[in-house]
Amino acid sequence: MELHTMSLGVIFLSEVVGTAMLILLGCGVVANTALAKTKGNGTGFLFVNWGWGLAVFAGVLVSYKSGGHLNPAVTLGLVAAGKEEFVAGIAVSFGSVMVYFLAQMIGAIIGAVLCWLAYKQHFDQEPDPASKLAVFSTAPAIRSYGWNLVTEAIGTFVLVFVVLAAGHWGDSETATPGGLGWLGALGVALLIVSIGISLGGPTGYAINPARDLGPRIVHAILPIKGKGGSDWSYSWVPVVGPLIGAVIAGLLSGVLLPA
Amino acid sequence: MELHTMSLGVIFLSEVVGTAMLILLGCGVVANTALAKTKGNGTGFLFVNWGWGLAVFAGVLVSYKSGGHLNPAVTLGLVAAGKEEFVAGIAVSFGSVMVYFLAQMIGAIIGAVLCWLAYKQHFDQEPDPASKLAVFSTAPAIRSYGWNLVTEAIGTFVLVFVVLAAGHWGDSETATPGGLGWLGALGVALLIVSIGISLGGPTGYAINPARDLGPRIVHAILPIKGKGGSDWSYSWVPVVGPLIGAVIAGLLSGVLLPA
Amino acid sequence: MELHTMSLGVIFLSEVVGTAMLILLGCGVVANTALAKTKGNGTGFLFVNWGWGLAVFAGVLVSYKSGGHLNPAVTLGLVAAGKEEFVAGIAVSFGSVMVYFLAQMIGAIIGAVLCWLAYKQHFDQEPDPASKLAVFSTAPAIRSYGWNLVTEAIGTFVLVFVVLAAGHWGDSETATPGGLGWLGALGVALLIVSIGISLGGPTGYAINPARDLGPRIVHAILPIKGKGGSDWSYSWVPVVGPLIGAVIAGLLSGVLLPA
Amino acid sequence: MELHTMSLGVIFLSEVVGTAMLILLGCGVVANTALAKTKGNGTGFLFVNWGWGLAVFAGVLVSYKSGGHLNPAVTLGLVAAGKEEFVAGIAVSFGSVMVYFLAQMIGAIIGAVLCWLAYKQHFDQEPDPASKLAVFSTAPAIRSYGWNLVTEAIGTFVLVFVVLAAGHWGDSETATPGGLGWLGALGVALLIVSIGISLGGPTGYAINPARDLGPRIVHAILPIKGKGGSDWSYSWVPVVGPLIGAVIAGLLSGVLLPA
Repeated sequence: MELHTMSLGVIFLSEVVGTAMLILLGCGVVANTALAKTKGNGTGFLFVNWGWGLAVFAGVLVSYKSGGHLNPAVTLGLVAAGKEEFVAGIAVSFGSVMVYFLAQMIGAIIGAVLCWLAYKQHFDQEPDPASKLAVFSTAPAIRSYGWNLVTEAIGTFVLVFVVLAAGHWGDSETATPGGLGWLGALGVALLIVSIGISLGGPTGYAINPARDLGPRIVHAILPIKGKGGSDWSYSWVPVVGPLIGAVIAGLLSGVLLPA
Repeated sequence: MELHTMSLGVIFLSEVVGTAMLILLGCGVVANTALAKTKGNGTGFLFVNWGWGLAVFAGVLVSYKSGGHLNPAVTLGLVAAGKEEFVAGIAVSFGSVMVYFLAQMIGAIIGAVLCWLAYKQHFDQEPDPASKLAVFSTAPAIRSYGWNLVTEAIGTFVLVFVVLAAGHWGDSETATPGGLGWLGALGVALLIVSIGISLGGPTGYAINPARDLGPRIVHAILPIKGKGGSDWSYSWVPVVGPLIGAVIAGLLSGVLLPA
Repeated sequence: MELHTMSLGVIFLSEVVGTAMLILLGCGVVANTALAKTKGNGTGFLFVNWGWGLAVFAGVLVSYKSGGHLNPAVTLGLVAAGKEEFVAGIAVSFGSVMVYFLAQMIGAIIGAVLCWLAYKQHFDQEPDPASKLAVFSTAPAIRSYGWNLVTEAIGTFVLVFVVLAAGHWGDSETATPGGLGWLGALGVALLIVSIGISLGGPTGYAINPARDLGPRIVHAILPIKGKGGSDWSYSWVPVVGPLIGAVIAGLLSGVLLPA
Repeated sequence: MELHTMSLGVIFLSEVVGTAMLILLGCGVVANTALAKTKGNGTGFLFVNWGWGLAVFAGVLVSYKSGGHLNPAVTLGLVAAGKEEFVAGIAVSFGSVMVYFLAQMIGAIIGAVLCWLAYKQHFDQEPDPASKLAVFSTAPAIRSYGWNLVTEAIGTFVLVFVVLAAGHWGDSETATPGGLGWLGALGVALLIVSIGISLGGPTGYAINPARDLGPRIVHAILPIKGKGGSDWSYSWVPVVGPLIGAVIAGLLSGVLLPA
C-alpha cells in the first residue's frame, strides 16, 4: 500500500541518517587518536570508548523515526526475540529487515566518507597504513578467527540482551530503543561505553556488521594517500560474530527476561 | 505455595542473569587493562572505575524482576535496614535471602567464565600469574587483613547507605533499587564509579562477596594457562568486610535517614 | 512595543550571562591543561572535551530565558531551519537575530576576561605565547584554510542537526534547546563532548563564532604578560566554517528530519 | 517551639551525614591519587574531578532532608539571594544558618577521619608530608593570597549562581537543590566536575569553607605518621574566597536571573 511504502521510505532515510552520524563520530574518535598530528593523538582507549558511546547517542537522537537500530545485529536481534513490529506500523518482515540492513550499510558508507573529509590532512600526513585502516574498520589484537568470533559474539550479545531488557522497565517512553525519549539514547550510549571498556580489548568491538563492513568498503574505494590493504581476510568476523551474538540474545531473551 | 515458589524462581533467575552480566563486564575491564596485548592495556584506574560502574548499570538493567541486588551485601543491608519485602510479593526471610545469595554466586561464576572466554587468547599470552588472578578477584595494595577489612567495610557502607537513602527521594520509580526505572540503574552505576575512585585505592573495592568469591572459585577451577595460586588466604576479607559494612549501613539507616 | 522591547532585553541579558559562563569554564579547561604549574597541566584531550561539554551544561542552565543558544551558529541554524520563534514571544527576525549575536559576543568577551583573572598568575608564569593564545582561541593542528573550514563546518553541522533532531522527541520540555529542563542541558553537553572527541582533532572544534572571536579580541586587547600575536589570519575560519555548517544543517533538517 | 526544634535537629543530622559522605569520598580520591602504593596512584586531575563530583552526588543523596547544601558558601548564597526558607518549615534566620554551618563543619571532620581510616596504611607508608596534607586540604599551585582568593571566589560564584539558576527550570522537583529528585543530585555533581576541570587549576578548588577547614583541623589533630605542618597561613583563603563568591552570586542572581 502507498502508506506502507512511504513509511518504509521514512525508515530507510532515518537509518541512513542515524548510521551516517554514528560512523562519522565513531570513526572520528579513532582518527583523532590514531592519525598524525591530531589534537587528541594517543589519548587512549577510554577516549575511544566515550567517543563511540556518544556517537551512538547522537546517531540514535537523529533516527527517531526508525527506532535507532543503526546496526544489523540489533535489527536481527529484535527479529530473533519475536518482535512483531519494529516501530508502530512497520511489521517485521523480510522486506523491512532488508530496508534496515541496506540503509545501515549506506549510512555507514556516507559516515566514513565524511570522517575522511574531516580528517583529510591528517590521513595525508599519517605514514602508517595500519593506522589509516584502523580509522575505518576493526582489527584483532591477537589474530585468531575462532576466538575473535567468540569475543564479537559475546559483546553483541550484551548489547542486544540489555537493550531488550531495558524495554521491560516501567516507562516505555524512556526505556525502549523503539520509542525512547532522548534519555533512552543516553542509556544505549552508556551501554556502548561499557561494552567497549569491558569487552573491546581483544577485537576493538565492532559489535555491528555495518559499522565494520561499510567503512571497510570506503577504505578500499577511496583514494587515500599511502593506504595499504583493507584486510579482507578478517572482514567476515565482525559481520558474522555480531549476528551470532544477536540471534542468541534474541532467542534467550524469551527465557531469561520474563515479562 | 505454588505462586510463591514460582516467584522465588523468577528472583533466582533474575539475580543469576544480572550478576553474570555484572561480572562479565566488570572482570572484563580488568582483563582489558591488565592482560597482554589488549587494546586497553594499561589505560589506568579511572578506566577500571567506569568499567565496573557501567557493569553495574548493565547488570541492574537485566535484573529488573529481583530489584538488581547482584551483591549479598546489598541483600543483607536491606535485611539489616528492616525491609519487609525485597520486591512486591517476596518477603524477607531466611529462604529468600538464601535464594538471592545462591543466585548471586552462580551468576558470578557464569560471568567469570564468559569473561575468560572473551579474553582467552590474552590469558594464554599473559606471562604474569598475578595479572591473571587480578582479572578474577581483588588483592590489597598493602596486605594488612585488619585495615583491608576496614576499607572494604567503609566502601560497602557507602554503597548500601546511599542506596537506602536514594529510596527516600520523592519518585520511588526512579530512586529505589527495588523498583527503579533505568535512570535508577544509572544512579547506582555512578555510585559504584564514585566508590571505586575514592575508596578503591587500598583494596581494589570488592564491596561484594559474590563479585570476589565467585570469580576466585572460577580461577581455581578453570584450566588457565600458567596461572598461579588463587590467594585463598586473602579471600575471606572481601567477603567479611562488605558484610560488616552492609549491616552497619542497614542498622544506622534507621537512625541517620529519617523518613 | 514596550513589552517586546522588554523581552528582547531579557533575551540579551540571558545570552550574555550564558555565554560568559560557557567561555569562563571552556577557556578555563584549556588554561588548566596548557598553562604553567596548574594542577591539571597536561591532563590531555579527553579532559578538555569534558571541560567544554560541561561548560555548555552550565551555560545553558543559566540562560533559560533565551533558550541557551550561546552560539551564533545555533541561532543561524534555527533561522535556516525555518523556525518562527526562538522562544515564546520572540519572533525570528533580523532584529532578534542581531540581539542574540551581539549578546553572544559580549558574553564571550566577559567570560574570557574572567578566565584570565582566574588564571592570572599562571598566564604570568607561562613562557610560551602559543599556549596563552590557545586558552582564548582555537588554532589548527595542520594549517590549511580550506580543509580547516571543512572540519569546522562538519562539526557544527553535527551540533545543529542533532539539536534540531532532539526537538522531535516526545517530551519537548526535556528535549528542545528552547524550552528544555536541565536534562536537556545535559543532552547538549554530551553532544559537545562527542563532537570534541570525534571531530576536534584537526581544528580544536570552535564550532561557534562567538566562542572563538570574542576571546581572540580579549587576547588582543588585554595586557597579558609576554603574549604573542592573536593569529588574525586564521580568525575567519572558526567564524565562517561554523556558519556554513549551521546553515546546511538547518536547510537539510527539513528534508532529513521528518516531523 | 518543639516542632521547630525537632526540625532543626533533623536539618543538623542531615547536613552532618551528607557532608561526612562528601568529605569521605572527596578526600578519598585525593588519597587514592596522592598516597604511596594505592591502586589509583598518579591517575591525574580528571580522576580527581570525577571523584569530587560524584562525592557531591552521594552526599546530596543522603541529605535529602536539608536540601543537601554541604557547604557554608551554598547556605550563605541562598541567604544573599533572599530566600525565605531553606526547606519547607525551616526559615532563613541567624539560628538556622548557624545550624547548617555547624553541621557542615562537624560532618567534614567526621568524613576526614573516616578517609584517614580507609587509607591508614597508605598514610603510614607515604614519605611526603605535602602529599598527606593534600588529602585533607587544598594548597595553591602558585601561592599568591590575593589571586588565590580571586580564583576561589570565581569558582564558588559559578557553583552558587548555577544552582540558583537551576531552580528556574520548570520542574522544581528535579532542578532545585532544596527539593530535588536524585537527578538533581546528578546535575550538581556534574557542575562540580565542571568547576574542578575548568577552575581548579590554580587552587585545587576548595569552593567550600567546610570542605577545607574541617579536614585541616583533622590533619592538625590526628596522629598521622610523619605529617608536616597544616599550612594555617593559607587556611583563610579557601574560607573567605568561597564566601565572597557566594555572596556576589546570591546578590547578582536577583538581577541576572529573572523569574
